[in-house]
This record gives sequence, C-alpha cells and structure tokens, in this order.
Amino acid sequence: MDRLNQFILSHRVARLATVDKLGRPLVVPICYVYDGKNLYSPIDKKPKLAPARDIKRIRNIIDNPFISVVIDDYDEDWNKLCYVIIHGRAELLESGEDYQMSLKLLCEKYPQYLEMNLSSSNLPVIKVIPARILSWGAI
Amino acid sequence: MDRLNQFILSHRVARLATVDKLGRPLVVPICYVYDGKNLYSPIDKKPKLAPARDIKRIRNIIDNPFISVVIDDYDEDWNKLCYVIIHGRAELLESGEDYQMSLKLLCEKYPQYLEMNLSSSNLPVIKVIPARILSWGAI
Repeated sequence: MDRLNQFILSHRVARLATVDKLGRPLVVPICYVYDGKNLYSPIDKKPKLAPARDIKRIRNIIDNPFISVVIDDYDEDWNKLCYVIIHGRAELLESGEDYQMSLKLLCEKYPQYLEMNLSSSNLPVIKVIPARILSWGAI
Repeated sequence: MDRLNQFILSHRVARLATVDKLGRPLVVPICYVYDGKNLYSPIDKKPKLAPARDIKRIRNIIDNPFISVVIDDYDEDWNKLCYVIIHGRAELLESGEDYQMSLKLLCEKYPQYLEMNLSSSNLPVIKVIPARILSWGAI
C-alpha cells in the first residue's frame, strides 16, 4: 500500500469543510473511514438532538456538494509537519450497499460506534468522493 | 480568563476553511495567534515558492472573505471530544500596527518563527475576524 493511502487509513480524525448557499464555509472535525477510493463520515457520535437534515453540514452538502477534507499531523518539529488535502464532492447515503459497507468499516475502525449501535441508528453517512488528493511534507 | 479564550490561546494548530469563486472550499492546517478578539495566521512556515498572491487560500480570501476556523481535541474517550468553531471573515495584512503586533505574537508563541526570521519576511498575515464563536464538548 502506498504512503498516501496508509496516511489516510491510519488517522483517526479529519476536518471537513462544506459551504452554504451564500458561500460561507463551515469546518468541523470528523471521524471517517476510507475504502481506498472514497471517505465515509457518519452523522454522528455526538448526542445531536436535531433531525439530520437540520445539521448544518448536511444542509450545506444538499445546497452545494463541493467539499474539502484535510488530514494532518502537527509537530513542534516543523520538519515533521504534513498533510493530505482532498478536494471533491459529497453525497449523502441513507441506505444501500455503500451505506451498509461504510457502517461496517466505521464500527471496525471505531469500537466507540459499536457501543452506540451506529448500525441501527439510521443516521445518514457523508460519502466524500475525491477529485484531487494533494499531499505535503513527511507523510 | 474564560475557558473559551483559554482553549483558543492554548492550542498550537487550527484548521482554516476558505472558499473560491465557484463555491469550492479549501481547508488547511494553520498556525495562529489570538489577541482575545481576532486570530492571525501567517503565510507561512513552509518553503512556499509561489508568490503570496498565488497561494490558494489567499486568492480565496481576496475573492470571498468568509472563513471558518476549527480548533479541536480528538481523544479515543469520546466524552473528551471538544471543539471551538469560528465563523467570520478574513482580511489580509501586509503592513501596519496589526501586522507588526501579529508577527510579535507569532514569534512569542512559536519559537520556530524566530529561527525563520518571520518578522523580516514581508509575508502577508491572514486576520480572522470572528462574527460567531461556537463551542461544543469539554473545552
């Protein structure tokens, strides 16, 4: 496996940027899995009381599918700084093969989701479809 | 000092989202300082060969001043997850009192910048002017 894939697979948190109708961005930390091609991020681990479609990142993706994701390492030795930036678009999954596969991968990567019964939650998953992947530094 | 300010001040890395003319976001890791009101992030610690105005985040801010910044802690104990999200706009500083003050704060917070002679680099600084600051979790 190449370093880029290994870097994406091995990290536990990424940051996702979406954009609203007025061109205003929102950036949030996300948990995610990677199947070697696309990323999948669930809504969500936190006790979000609002219906999924009222969650800002979801509304943004419905209005504007363009997204950006960064996965990076910070270190006080700046020779060790590195990041992977993904440009692409997002889709919302609420059922189907991709959806079930992503829930399975999420529960394998994050045991926390098993405890939360993510699989039976019916919450949407954000599918991130990369168009370009850039890397910089010591990945 | 309140917890929110302490959280912003004590962290070493944030992630900044900007948006291009076509509504496509870009998210990048940034170093920053906070004067209790605004954030300041320089261009940059890395050996960027391109002129500052060719750097994508700078072009985005010139085209669209809306930005979002997230500062967060990831932990495998999800009860410890937390973030601060800043919505606002950005300005570019290239001289003046704010610019000089931000370089001073940056060199105090990051000794790495002293070694790089940030102060004499004439590189622009992104000033992030928060409109709303949201926090979630155990900040």
